[in-house]
Amino acid sequence: MSATVGQIIKCRAAIAWEAGKPLVIEEVEVAPPKAGEVRLKILYTSLCHTDVYFWEAKGQTPLFPRIFGHEASGIVESIGEGVTHLQPGDHALPVFTGECGECVHCKSEESNMCELLRINTDRGVMINDGQSRFSKNGKPIYHFLGTSTFSEYTVVHAGCVAKINPAAPLDKSCVLSCGICTGFGATVNVAKPKPGSSIAIFGLGAVGLAAAEGARVSGASRIIGIDLVSSRFEEAKKFGVNEFVNPKDHDKPIQQVIAEMTNGGVDRAVECTGSIQAMVSAFECVHDGWGLAVLVGVPNKDDAFKTAPINFLNERTLKGTFYGNYKPRTDLPAVVEKYMSGELEVDKFITHSVPFSEINKAFEYMLKGQSIRCIIRMQE
Amino acid sequence: MSATVGQIIKCRAAIAWEAGKPLVIEEVEVAPPKAGEVRLKILYTSLCHTDVYFWEAKGQTPLFPRIFGHEASGIVESIGEGVTHLQPGDHALPVFTGECGECVHCKSEESNMCELLRINTDRGVMINDGQSRFSKNGKPIYHFLGTSTFSEYTVVHAGCVAKINPAAPLDKSCVLSCGICTGFGATVNVAKPKPGSSIAIFGLGAVGLAAAEGARVSGASRIIGIDLVSSRFEEAKKFGVNEFVNPKDHDKPIQQVIAEMTNGGVDRAVECTGSIQAMVSAFECVHDGWGLAVLVGVPNKDDAFKTAPINFLNERTLKGTFYGNYKPRTDLPAVVEKYMSGELEVDKFITHSVPFSEINKAFEYMLKGQSIRCIIRMQE
Repeated sequence: MSATVGQIIKCRAAIAWEAGKPLVIEEVEVAPPKAGEVRLKILYTSLCHTDVYFWEAKGQTPLFPRIFGHEASGIVESIGEGVTHLQPGDHALPVFTGECGECVHCKSEESNMCELLRINTDRGVMINDGQSRFSKNGKPIYHFLGTSTFSEYTVVHAGCVAKINPAAPLDKSCVLSCGICTGFGATVNVAKPKPGSSIAIFGLGAVGLAAAEGARVSGASRIIGIDLVSSRFEEAKKFGVNEFVNPKDHDKPIQQVIAEMTNGGVDRAVECTGSIQAMVSAFECVHDGWGLAVLVGVPNKDDAFKTAPINFLNERTLKGTFYGNYKPRTDLPAVVEKYMSGELEVDKFITHSVPFSEINKAFEYMLKGQSIRCIIRMQE
Repeated sequence: MSATVGQIIKCRAAIAWEAGKPLVIEEVEVAPPKAGEVRLKILYTSLCHTDVYFWEAKGQTPLFPRIFGHEASGIVESIGEGVTHLQPGDHALPVFTGECGECVHCKSEESNMCELLRINTDRGVMINDGQSRFSKNGKPIYHFLGTSTFSEYTVVHAGCVAKINPAAPLDKSCVLSCGICTGFGATVNVAKPKPGSSIAIFGLGAVGLAAAEGARVSGASRIIGIDLVSSRFEEAKKFGVNEFVNPKDHDKPIQQVIAEMTNGGVDRAVECTGSIQAMVSAFECVHDGWGLAVLVGVPNKDDAFKTAPINFLNERTLKGTFYGNYKPRTDLPAVVEKYMSGELEVDKFITHSVPFSEINKAFEYMLKGQSIRCIIRMQE
């Protein structure tokens, strides 16, 4: 048993003191896990748009000081009372949403929207006692998404921790804890394109590229990428995208352009931007009779989805998905195996890597649109 | 071979000379079938709302004189050149939509929206030559939905004729050629409720009752009927409806009432009214994580379906269906067998019956909301 078990751990964390201001790496105290919790040593974390979004706090409820970070990999340092599926030393991925195993969603074969541990962007404390496990000079620092992986150690609800194959390289598999699974799962678990079929992917950021990767793995033959930035097409080719449409190049609605390219519409569409306009286009560009569009991107909360009902009656289907329909604990180990077997190519998502001490560079890469994923090496 | 083969047949038909005016039974001439067509002797036809809707021609393109009728059963009198799946003497159901067998939809496992023979409410002539097969005193009378079954004989594209078991009583199975299959198929082919699950059925007319019948046959345990007319609940019980909600009895949106009744929402919903408000309610009343709503009712063409996209992102699905996703030629024979085996109870849909000479009574029963289905006995 490690000497730290049951003790407060002092370690480095990147604290966001204010919205939009560079993170500051400082020493924090991390309390031991309480019942049903796990303390993780984070080895690698990667930056996701959601971190940036809440750090900027434009239109979000600001909650500071806060430790961001939610896409990560690490090793279990210690477990709280009642935790049975994890042991110290286990390799693990913390996840921003969870799987309590007991609620109607966890018991449903179809849902991964755990009632207890479903994503909550406004909560800055642990669900058990409403307290933070992080403090500095006796003052609490808020959690983010129940993960707060921009810290060398963090405390997470055990239902939000997936145990994975210890042979999996943690510096790569960290990206599976959020964005890649979200896009990949949207395609392979929800859109399910058939071999030889056509699919439109709206948005060629990390999530959209992961959706394209899912289409490539599924054997779709026409993978049409749609993005407002034409330069993204070149990179997207690595992920199977073999046709490209920039809505700016067309006067017609993009759904009409796609329908004309595909003799009436694509078989599947996956929307990964969160733009309400793209959502409508994604739905309206699928073929009548069998077309299925899947919504992934998170819209502004006042947006309204609007379409003519005949588009449904002509046998189109519209579905939304959350975290690629993966149940974190149950399903992530198999996704890691897909990566290990070479089926799901993770490496190509990783364009940058920085030591923890330079974490603000990761923000710069993302804000400039230069990175797909930037790994932050927590031990450096 | 019948003496009528290749000859014009003179017979009785109910002609609609003007919008909304009583039909007039007169002698018409019915030309022989051309290539790919079939001439049917209609024995029974039942009145469907769609007949009434286009007869009233409120907001529809008026096309008169016209012979309405599309839900029927009969016997093949003769076949045109190239027709191979039907022979004179076959028992058959004409259908308002078809199955050419050659187009992408017919070749798709998922679609029944045949490109060639898909419903066309504005066309009043045969698709082959743009001519009518009906005439009176040398002047053409328009067809309706390619079926025009309010005539003792009619000519139909062979792709719109399903051959059925000759042992099936034609005076009952006629109702399977439109409304009953539309509702029943929406549930059993598309909504697919699991045994023990909950389902909301919006609208308790013939189509909604058929959707409820599908839920009963599927083993759904909570079948919640929603209708603005409370007296319909009593009749609906025969079709498996075991709870009833009248939106007029509540101040809250009906989706909220249903969510409260069902601990967060029903597993499935089927919308059979065509009201845009009911469509939105049907979608928003299904449970997050796994809920599926199916749209059946035909809306006004200017209606817009509008909802917050988060309703999709929380893993709800919205699908539309057309004719219960049945392919007329391929699938109807099996539906007739379901009726023959007693699984699908057809008799209870038939509330009235009139001789052909009193066809206008069938319109009265429907307009007064007294009938579910009224059979018109064409030989009387």
